[in-house]
Amino acid sequence: MDWITSRICDAATAAEMIQDGDILGLSGFTLAGYPKAVPSALAARAQKLHEQGQHFKVDLFSGASTGDSCDGALARAEAIGLRMPYQSNASLRKGINSGSIRYIDAHLGKMGYLVRTGAVPAPTVAIIEVSAILPDGRICLSTSGGNSVCYLDMAKKIILEWNTRLGESCMEIHDNALPELPPHARPLPIYSAGDRVGEDLVRIDTNKVIAIVKNDGYDEVTPFVEPDTISTNIGERILDFIRFEESRGRLPKGMAYQSGVGKVANAVLCAMANDDRLGKIDIFTEVIQEAVLPLLKKGKLGVASGTALTLSQAAQEEFVKNSADWKKHFVLRQQEVSNSPDVIRRLGVISMNTALEVDIFGNVNSSLVCGSSMMNGIGGAADFARHCALGFFLTPSVAKDGAISSIVPYVSHVDHTEHDTQIFVTEQGLADLRGLSAEDRARLIIKECAHPDFKEPLTDALEYGLKHAKGKHLPLALTKAFEMHNRYLETGKMLP
Amino acid sequence: MDWITSRICDAATAAEMIQDGDILGLSGFTLAGYPKAVPSALAARAQKLHEQGQHFKVDLFSGASTGDSCDGALARAEAIGLRMPYQSNASLRKGINSGSIRYIDAHLGKMGYLVRTGAVPAPTVAIIEVSAILPDGRICLSTSGGNSVCYLDMAKKIILEWNTRLGESCMEIHDNALPELPPHARPLPIYSAGDRVGEDLVRIDTNKVIAIVKNDGYDEVTPFVEPDTISTNIGERILDFIRFEESRGRLPKGMAYQSGVGKVANAVLCAMANDDRLGKIDIFTEVIQEAVLPLLKKGKLGVASGTALTLSQAAQEEFVKNSADWKKHFVLRQQEVSNSPDVIRRLGVISMNTALEVDIFGNVNSSLVCGSSMMNGIGGAADFARHCALGFFLTPSVAKDGAISSIVPYVSHVDHTEHDTQIFVTEQGLADLRGLSAEDRARLIIKECAHPDFKEPLTDALEYGLKHAKGKHLPLALTKAFEMHNRYLETGKMLP
Repeated sequence: MDWITSRICDAATAAEMIQDGDILGLSGFTLAGYPKAVPSALAARAQKLHEQGQHFKVDLFSGASTGDSCDGALARAEAIGLRMPYQSNASLRKGINSGSIRYIDAHLGKMGYLVRTGAVPAPTVAIIEVSAILPDGRICLSTSGGNSVCYLDMAKKIILEWNTRLGESCMEIHDNALPELPPHARPLPIYSAGDRVGEDLVRIDTNKVIAIVKNDGYDEVTPFVEPDTISTNIGERILDFIRFEESRGRLPKGMAYQSGVGKVANAVLCAMANDDRLGKIDIFTEVIQEAVLPLLKKGKLGVASGTALTLSQAAQEEFVKNSADWKKHFVLRQQEVSNSPDVIRRLGVISMNTALEVDIFGNVNSSLVCGSSMMNGIGGAADFARHCALGFFLTPSVAKDGAISSIVPYVSHVDHTEHDTQIFVTEQGLADLRGLSAEDRARLIIKECAHPDFKEPLTDALEYGLKHAKGKHLPLALTKAFEMHNRYLETGKMLP
Repeated sequence: MDWITSRICDAATAAEMIQDGDILGLSGFTLAGYPKAVPSALAARAQKLHEQGQHFKVDLFSGASTGDSCDGALARAEAIGLRMPYQSNASLRKGINSGSIRYIDAHLGKMGYLVRTGAVPAPTVAIIEVSAILPDGRICLSTSGGNSVCYLDMAKKIILEWNTRLGESCMEIHDNALPELPPHARPLPIYSAGDRVGEDLVRIDTNKVIAIVKNDGYDEVTPFVEPDTISTNIGERILDFIRFEESRGRLPKGMAYQSGVGKVANAVLCAMANDDRLGKIDIFTEVIQEAVLPLLKKGKLGVASGTALTLSQAAQEEFVKNSADWKKHFVLRQQEVSNSPDVIRRLGVISMNTALEVDIFGNVNSSLVCGSSMMNGIGGAADFARHCALGFFLTPSVAKDGAISSIVPYVSHVDHTEHDTQIFVTEQGLADLRGLSAEDRARLIIKECAHPDFKEPLTDALEYGLKHAKGKHLPLALTKAFEMHNRYLETGKMLP
């Protein structure tokens, strides 16, 4: 019996091989390419053990967020001790915010580096979804790169989930290089979004493989929704601005685009697909979202490089069907490379990320509601924000039917400092903050981006700061910094 | 008459060539290598014009901070409109915090990039201190690299200040490469702190040179002070921790050291010089401070690479005298290279920077007192903090005779987010935050780093947050976030 056949078992059997206290290194990034059978079997096992009064918790490291059958099931089974570096699941979020699950929200591009250098412990068991297993000990990853190469290398034990639905659709898509570790590391020779610098298959130590479990599941990505008016408006403002910068000679041709996750980011890509003046573009991003497909179908996509191919079920089927024709347009990298500060800076990336809230001085919160309650996490935005050639943060100007202004006197949590942000865009307008001092930034953001209902209270906060703050460099009065947030927490509205 | 002789004039004559509204691109970084004659002549001119009722202000771009005869004189003459990207001068600070001088506090490693890509306007006049001018149109910079190559290239007019005191002491020290601009930029082939990738002399367009002014001044650096007990204590804790990490196999040999500016950072280098167990080390930093000299004299310095050689007057004299022997140990780079995220990450840097205040969740404020009043600026710390292999933020646990705790429930300004910090050190102890969730970080920082007088109020703030914050992920109650700061602003003390 060959090594593959001898390791094949069902999910429950594989779950039995995982012990209380194990650190699991999972494949998967924004619901693409995570293991779909073993985690839910593990959740069932944990539940059973808990009913017997036994302690059973594991730590979960991943690429980024995984599906509800993984993050959700394990959270509901109270089987997660620590989760790192990103999530977007309702059940898991509840555990994090109730204090029952510890969560470390980390730069996604640095997670693998932290593991490889020993700054955080190595996973004890890697659970990796693959699309192919070769008899010679090489595997093909599935729909995301994530930290899979790192976890396969660092973990003592490996469980492979073999997604048989994918067939050969993921072959030749991956580029599995990792940056060298310091000291004296050489740079990755990536000069264009499509440059390949590694192998598409990963050679693993077959002696470490303790189980192979088949699945034929889909990535549980929600169906694609056409952009709404507000998102489309934001997308068009960005395209207008890019054309303006090009016309001023400040944006050379050949830059690559990065767009974050979510409906506003999707809307930008849709606006690009619908823009006849825009030529063929390359994408160098973290998550290749569904809105890339319209670009591809219109012949406007050069290459899309990312670490995850996050598609709805319908689009997943379409991808498998058309993969032979489409795959030359895609490169899936390990997330240390898709989010590499070095490569981002050298390629020249036009970066577009969604903010949870921004403040009038230029700081951005992308993770914590009211400074304490985790939404998803910082994700990879920080490396793009700091190292991009041109950087946008996008948000509708208000949320919850106008109860909340996305623009506040001071963000309740800082994920991107005033030093790392360039341009804010809402459906109201666009504020180019480059070369402006704090007070000038504040006046421009209020004028261009704030919702009309909030222009006055925001201006009041600024004027109060100019009168009462200790210094006028960044005129923030600490006594009133969170007045709008505190009112919202008390009354459900930021305004009286 | 050759081109050099024909341009030589006195400082007052050169100052006449500068117009109201000019943007001056100055050499100089942390008081090393700034122009010493023209700025003060310009301040005198501005004062005279103001007395005549004329408007006269210029914008000042630099490497980083310059001496009082430059930043100070121009600030006192009310001749500065906008200052960017860093300063440390009392008069200038006063103008910034009173709102009369606009100030943009930017990542020092990115300033040149912003100018070269047009994100901020190019200087109209470059005023650059040089140590040598060759008839063939090449110059040798003086004691700092800064953004001088960028400003010499981008400005339409050039004024050279020829520091005749320096003789040949700065020849062969500089390495004047700049990173290529995107798209498709190639990386700088720097793999060790001492690697040279450019020319030591800069070729300039001699047609742009409108004046050459001689000076024989010293960089106005304050005399070196031996470290006090608290700083020494912090330095020794860091060395102990580095040895611990090495013993655990988490820190390969061959990493380079970076140390920030100030007495605590100096103390770390002094502790290294006094440590007999420590072998020869390389330094890859922004500012090469005087405390590097003891390492050099004890034969423990391989190479010190930086963008500024910031020495007291006595040490400047010593350097000129010994430069023939010493210069092989020094490389002065442009600040886009000394602070390059790419090079920092690939070299593997052990980074040590001073914080103004830190909070229990891991955020660091390095620039703003009580969230609004500018001290100096963020400097280059952010690129080192995010991209280093091992990163320390250092601060004495209290300031102002115990009235202020450097550890607070929430920093009043965020320069480095919780995602970018690793290890906090005070004279009380050291907290390794890697792999810890927010609550665990808080408990460890309070236990290890806080001053005994503040352990209880900080714990109270954390417990209050765990009870009252919207979420427990990062248990910060916004209503009490700045309670200690607000009490300090009211009473002069953070405690009741």
